[in-house]
Amino acid sequence: MSVIYERVALIGLGLIASSMFWAMKRGGLVGEVTGYARTAETRAKAREIGLCDRVCETAAEAVEGADLVVLAVPVGAMGAVAEEIAPALAPGATVTDVGSVKRAVIEAVAPHMPEGVHFVPAHPLAGTEQSGPTAGFAALFDNRWCLLVPEGAEEAAVARLERLWQGMGSMTERMDADHHDLVLAVTSHTPHLIAYTMVGVADDLRRVTDSEVVKYSAAGFRDFTRIAASDPVMWRDVFLTNKEATLEILGRFTEELFALQRAIRLGDGAHLQDYFTRTRAIRRGIVEAGQDTDAPDFGRVPKR
Amino acid sequence: MSVIYERVALIGLGLIASSMFWAMKRGGLVGEVTGYARTAETRAKAREIGLCDRVCETAAEAVEGADLVVLAVPVGAMGAVAEEIAPALAPGATVTDVGSVKRAVIEAVAPHMPEGVHFVPAHPLAGTEQSGPTAGFAALFDNRWCLLVPEGAEEAAVARLERLWQGMGSMTERMDADHHDLVLAVTSHTPHLIAYTMVGVADDLRRVTDSEVVKYSAAGFRDFTRIAASDPVMWRDVFLTNKEATLEILGRFTEELFALQRAIRLGDGAHLQDYFTRTRAIRRGIVEAGQDTDAPDFGRVPKR
Repeated sequence: MSVIYERVALIGLGLIASSMFWAMKRGGLVGEVTGYARTAETRAKAREIGLCDRVCETAAEAVEGADLVVLAVPVGAMGAVAEEIAPALAPGATVTDVGSVKRAVIEAVAPHMPEGVHFVPAHPLAGTEQSGPTAGFAALFDNRWCLLVPEGAEEAAVARLERLWQGMGSMTERMDADHHDLVLAVTSHTPHLIAYTMVGVADDLRRVTDSEVVKYSAAGFRDFTRIAASDPVMWRDVFLTNKEATLEILGRFTEELFALQRAIRLGDGAHLQDYFTRTRAIRRGIVEAGQDTDAPDFGRVPKR
Repeated sequence: MSVIYERVALIGLGLIASSMFWAMKRGGLVGEVTGYARTAETRAKAREIGLCDRVCETAAEAVEGADLVVLAVPVGAMGAVAEEIAPALAPGATVTDVGSVKRAVIEAVAPHMPEGVHFVPAHPLAGTEQSGPTAGFAALFDNRWCLLVPEGAEEAAVARLERLWQGMGSMTERMDADHHDLVLAVTSHTPHLIAYTMVGVADDLRRVTDSEVVKYSAAGFRDFTRIAASDPVMWRDVFLTNKEATLEILGRFTEELFALQRAIRLGDGAHLQDYFTRTRAIRRGIVEAGQDTDAPDFGRVPKR
């Protein structure tokens, strides 16, 4: 495969950007990759582990001469970063992002994009509960979806970015920004908020000591703690910027929860059993679609 | 290690009983194991895969001469099974169960226990989202906790059952029935109800098609679907019989959820970030306690 971009700049060096670096290198998809992170500590760590061909001291320096610039910072920081790099962007360059919310990112970034620069928002649906420059790995995007939200960008620029994501192992699809934000509110944002809430409740309970919650977590709770261990700043920004869709889905969630709570209170076993039977089918669909393992317990191996 | 029980009867042949069979045989912990399941189909499957040394046509036949009888049926069926086997129990036998709720099981089973039979309720905190006689495997209990709720049973009988669980790989602890039911409401029952609810909500949404929910599930939702794929009858019975503790924890959960929802609505980023930072520590505790893997994403390997 020939090189898709000659010069890539990664702005922000967390889990997603570092995984992109290793995946782009694995595929021989790009030429030189520069990187920038806000803290000196992250820049030093990146240099130490060979993350990026060149780590720069400013975002503007990193984007100079780049034909692809990837904004990989929390959603709430996208606007300021876009404003900062705008004067240094090369004509004809593509700017993309990897934020979990699309409408808010477009509103924050698009106004800063100079004439002749292609802005193609994107969102790889991949991640782990770990964060920072050392968390990345080349296989993160394999067989995962990356949603592109072109919003009127030139077809050639969109297709080129799609080739990059496909080269990193992803399947790609295009979507409208508002629909993206609603789908993600269901499949990601609301589940994360609920997991955070459940873990917070357990933490608060004084009669059930911390150590009991931890010791006996294998009965279900530990699955919640994994997603509730994700990056707090990233998730704060997701909820602040995808407010309407998240609140809408949360409303649906509490409505259903109250109905089940009522069934428990009234001893309505048929209602509960019907509900629980219906949800099994969705799991089967996910396993069949190759989006999760069918090994029991995610294939976890117990430690001895 | 010498044999702990000469004759074990497994009543109900699902995930837990079948895993116990393989774990007991792996450890050479017991002599002959008989089994009984309500449906002819399950009994036939058990015979086909060599689950149990002898599969019986009635529960009474299976328990004849057994020095350990394990009730491994849904919590709501425990009382009827106990009544059915009571006349056939050998004097001095131990009866135990593996139910996820303890107070209700004790109330249902204890009245049927004949003089001279030791009833020692227990609950192995282990399982997967799969069910039925073919779902079991010997390592299920390795490094997992088994909680015993002796409720006044003779020390020798309790200690003997503890040795069996330890031989199957478990760590054991004794607990009062009501405390057990509260701890499990936090670490297991409420998380399961919430996961079921979230999956049900996603299933209901018409604008976000089924296929999108399934395709894009890797962003968080799929973790919920795993626990929402657990056995519907077992879980119906858990909620019907651990009603009070579950409703109490659910009340706490909705209170917290409303506080976070309000923070989102008001744009209170500091509240969200604080909350999300606090929950990370619990995850670390669980990994350090050996109750989950520290591999990103549970160590899932993406399919290609």
